[in-house]
Amino acid sequence: MSKIGILGTGNVGDTIGSRLIELGHSVTMGSRTNNNEKALAFVAKHGDKALAGTFAEAASFGEIIFNCTKGLGSLDALHMAGENNLKDKIIVDVSNPLDFSQGMPPSLTVSNTDSLAEEIQRAYPSSKVVKTLNTMWAGLMVNPNLINNGDHTAFISGNDTDAKNTVKEILVSFGWIDKNIIDLGDITTSRGTEMYLALWVRVMASLNTGSFNIKIVS
Amino acid sequence: MSKIGILGTGNVGDTIGSRLIELGHSVTMGSRTNNNEKALAFVAKHGDKALAGTFAEAASFGEIIFNCTKGLGSLDALHMAGENNLKDKIIVDVSNPLDFSQGMPPSLTVSNTDSLAEEIQRAYPSSKVVKTLNTMWAGLMVNPNLINNGDHTAFISGNDTDAKNTVKEILVSFGWIDKNIIDLGDITTSRGTEMYLALWVRVMASLNTGSFNIKIVS
Repeated sequence: MSKIGILGTGNVGDTIGSRLIELGHSVTMGSRTNNNEKALAFVAKHGDKALAGTFAEAASFGEIIFNCTKGLGSLDALHMAGENNLKDKIIVDVSNPLDFSQGMPPSLTVSNTDSLAEEIQRAYPSSKVVKTLNTMWAGLMVNPNLINNGDHTAFISGNDTDAKNTVKEILVSFGWIDKNIIDLGDITTSRGTEMYLALWVRVMASLNTGSFNIKIVS
Repeated sequence: MSKIGILGTGNVGDTIGSRLIELGHSVTMGSRTNNNEKALAFVAKHGDKALAGTFAEAASFGEIIFNCTKGLGSLDALHMAGENNLKDKIIVDVSNPLDFSQGMPPSLTVSNTDSLAEEIQRAYPSSKVVKTLNTMWAGLMVNPNLINNGDHTAFISGNDTDAKNTVKEILVSFGWIDKNIIDLGDITTSRGTEMYLALWVRVMASLNTGSFNIKIVS
């Protein structure tokens, strides 16, 4: 069991944090302040294995860090977390650089020849950024069995093979079928999964639900 | 049966043109010159129902036009086809704005807040641009049964509902299952399917084949 720091107390952070605690890990939920209402509610709900703190406290606590902040605020949150607290650690990046300022559907703030995951990797070169799970609704990230008997696809991108293997083990503990986790390669392949969001938001609008995913068939 | 003009004599144009002839349609393959080798080979292969000509001759011939040119050359090819020859017609756009100038994987020449399909629609406002099939290898476009018993997903985008229904009928004649053709909405939703290419090229590299597709599961 690991000590995990979660940056971001929104729906994604709460969903992932709750599932990690259910699986026996210890979690500190990090936010801008150490008295964030959602983080305190998370602690009240989960008890002993849950803590709330600042981004820096969550990052310091975690052996593994999950970036569950909104993409627009991710670099800022990581800056507040502090380089020393992120040093040499795995950063699991599930965020997307969505820009809702022009309404729905959102566009991306970075894409095509760069990605948010690459920006994070460049900002924290000693950290091992692993991009994954950003292609679906939070509920499915941690409970793939909610649809299609768990038989659908997750992607993983990152420069460090050991780090990707560690994250794959967490995904398998969530219920992901090993063969359905497609390793796309290095962190630049995050461009693919982040740009897929442009399709995801439109499929969501067409199906009128976020509870779907893609399955690669061949 | 329809008279169909195909712009582009590459693999995509040849694959779609051959299938349309197999289904009983008449096809003119259009290219820059009226003596394009691939177009002449197409005519030699298919006989009576096949013709070769310039982009303008193919567009003039077609009641429906398929844009199968490389995305970088699409606007130029349509310009050579001529506005009068495209007027009020359905343009089925299967192209992608891929830029290979920096090597593999390609980036997109237009994305995020615009798309190639929208550029085409703006250039030819009386035409009915329908974006479809651009999310997969040409072989699957016209023979979805090649994988997973034909059970996977195609998308369709366009401003004109009747035009989309006409194109859907062609897709069903190719073997597509009606419920697997997801109507994403107006032509701006082409941003989603074009940007998905950034994921497609990386999945292709990871699987080492282009013979795959996505199936939406929920």
